[in-house]
Amino acid sequence: MAKIRPVGDRVVVKPAAKEEVTKSGIVIPDTAKEKPQEGVVVAVGNGRLLDNGDRAPIDVHEGDRVLFAKYGGTEFKLDGEEYLVLKENDILAIVG
Amino acid sequence: MAKIRPVGDRVVVKPAAKEEVTKSGIVIPDTAKEKPQEGVVVAVGNGRLLDNGDRAPIDVHEGDRVLFAKYGGTEFKLDGEEYLVLKENDILAIVG
Amino acid sequence: MAKIRPVGDRVVVKPAAKEEVTKSGIVIPDTAKEKPQEGVVVAVGNGRLLDNGDRAPIDVHEGDRVLFAKYGGTEFKLDGEEYLVLKENDILAIVG
Amino acid sequence: MAKIRPVGDRVVVKPAAKEEVTKSGIVIPDTAKEKPQEGVVVAVGNGRLLDNGDRAPIDVHEGDRVLFAKYGGTEFKLDGEEYLVLKENDILAIVG
Amino acid sequence: MAKIRPVGDRVVVKPAAKEEVTKSGIVIPDTAKEKPQEGVVVAVGNGRLLDNGDRAPIDVHEGDRVLFAKYGGTEFKLDGEEYLVLKENDILAIVG
Amino acid sequence: MAKIRPVGDRVVVKPAAKEEVTKSGIVIPDTAKEKPQEGVVVAVGNGRLLDNGDRAPIDVHEGDRVLFAKYGGTEFKLDGEEYLVLKENDILAIVG
Amino acid sequence: MAKIRPVGDRVVVKPAAKEEVTKSGIVIPDTAKEKPQEGVVVAVGNGRLLDNGDRAPIDVHEGDRVLFAKYGGTEFKLDGEEYLVLKENDILAIVG
Repeated sequence: MAKIRPVGDRVVVKPAAKEEVTKSGIVIPDTAKEKPQEGVVVAVGNGRLLDNGDRAPIDVHEGDRVLFAKYGGTEFKLDGEEYLVLKENDILAIVG
Repeated sequence: MAKIRPVGDRVVVKPAAKEEVTKSGIVIPDTAKEKPQEGVVVAVGNGRLLDNGDRAPIDVHEGDRVLFAKYGGTEFKLDGEEYLVLKENDILAIVG
Repeated sequence: MAKIRPVGDRVVVKPAAKEEVTKSGIVIPDTAKEKPQEGVVVAVGNGRLLDNGDRAPIDVHEGDRVLFAKYGGTEFKLDGEEYLVLKENDILAIVG
Repeated sequence: MAKIRPVGDRVVVKPAAKEEVTKSGIVIPDTAKEKPQEGVVVAVGNGRLLDNGDRAPIDVHEGDRVLFAKYGGTEFKLDGEEYLVLKENDILAIVG
Repeated sequence: MAKIRPVGDRVVVKPAAKEEVTKSGIVIPDTAKEKPQEGVVVAVGNGRLLDNGDRAPIDVHEGDRVLFAKYGGTEFKLDGEEYLVLKENDILAIVG
Repeated sequence: MAKIRPVGDRVVVKPAAKEEVTKSGIVIPDTAKEKPQEGVVVAVGNGRLLDNGDRAPIDVHEGDRVLFAKYGGTEFKLDGEEYLVLKENDILAIVG
Repeated sequence: MAKIRPVGDRVVVKPAAKEEVTKSGIVIPDTAKEKPQEGVVVAVGNGRLLDNGDRAPIDVHEGDRVLFAKYGGTEFKLDGEEYLVLKENDILAIVG
């Protein structure tokens, strides 16, 4: 997905459809306080700016299947598909 | 646009008109919690002041087409055109 | 549990079942303001990003039996088992 | 204006009169959430104290025509003229 | 007490029984806004993570009799005895 | 005023009497949101503690006539005269 | 007072009795928003932990007569005498 590049410590995620979630074995209980969501990373930014002026490489990569906190992300559509822009810190874990 | 120079880690963005948004393929769903907006960067500041006294160059450039969080920006008009001054951190992604 | 890798300074914990809690000798009084919970660490992230760009190794390890603050963690199910993703800072102590 | 020296990362601004605003081509829409204001910098401080004990020179200069966020500034009168003391961070952009 | 190791800048304290408090000469007035409590340190963590990746040794030691702010600590029972896990910063002073 | 030494980044200021304010040419409008006040610095502390353990010398000096934000200061009387202890950051500008 | 050692950047202060306050010439007006109080420092901690792992020596010493902000301190009694544990930052000035 060369059409979008997140800025700084942000990543773009394509949320998984319902049936895909089942396949990976991850289930999010309805009783969870702050429900995470599953998806695939499609683009990553240059990373957080460090105090010395460098950028810290982001700890997830294109193609990673991830659990993320939906809260705080920003939804948009590109060519008819839904995506979210998230801060790296909203990615909880890499799955599979 | 030499007539305005943002200070520090700020950028000036010209919001896209409705028809331009359609062309880029980006659509912002009405159901989005915190709707991003599309626009073009027309000026960038010297960057955030680092602890060692240097300035960190801003990660977007003049002419970049961007998704930005409208919240937090400041609107003004120059020669009859509408603009926003934003913090670099309010720019979510570069499009296209 | 190779199927999940927490990001940054996060850990994945499997909460202990009631009978296991009794065996370890730890009891959480019902009158406790902010009840901790017992569990076992099943996966740890790369650690918190330091200002110099390094990652600080996480101070708990796979297999550690821990007391943790439930508040702030995120619940999910994997292959029918319940887990939590927590920040390293939500782990209070290693038991046993 | 040698009669006043702002302390640290502060600047003193003389707000523009209504007719001057028209001349510069900048117009602030009444619908703007947090209206910026136009003015001229008349004095700058020694700059923000860095962690190494140095001062970071302020990014605007005496005579600069600026857009600033009125919120947070402190108004005073000197020899019958109105001024504001602002933090450097409240200056949004240099105009013209 | 080798059975519990606090994580990071935390300590485990065994609160003093009423009669012990009298012996040390410390009395907490009922009118105190935020009542401190007396106890004995039974275990200390590896210390707070510094920006350079080192751990800062904790400024109290096993066996120290301490005044602590009860607020913020987490209570638990081990082998029938009551304990609290506290941040080092919640320890006010070493007594005796 | 050798009888009082402010601690850290604090200064002691003697507020100006009404007639003195007129003489300096500074007038504070009644409509100002957060009214500054005028006074003379009578003592300064050793300065803010830096991360390297040094103290940053305070940017105002004994005898400086200053505009300050009254909010946040602490009033006291010494030998029948009124004073305020303020943080250096509450001093807005040096006048005259 | 060897019987108590404050932890980190804390100090122990013995509040002055009413008659002592008169002798020093300091009077706290009843109209003061956040009334300071007078007392004598009886013990100081090892100082605030710096980012490099050192401790910054505390800027007041045993025997110093001080003005302090009562708010934030913690009261206790030792051998029948009243004391307060305060953060160094709650000490406003050294008197006399």
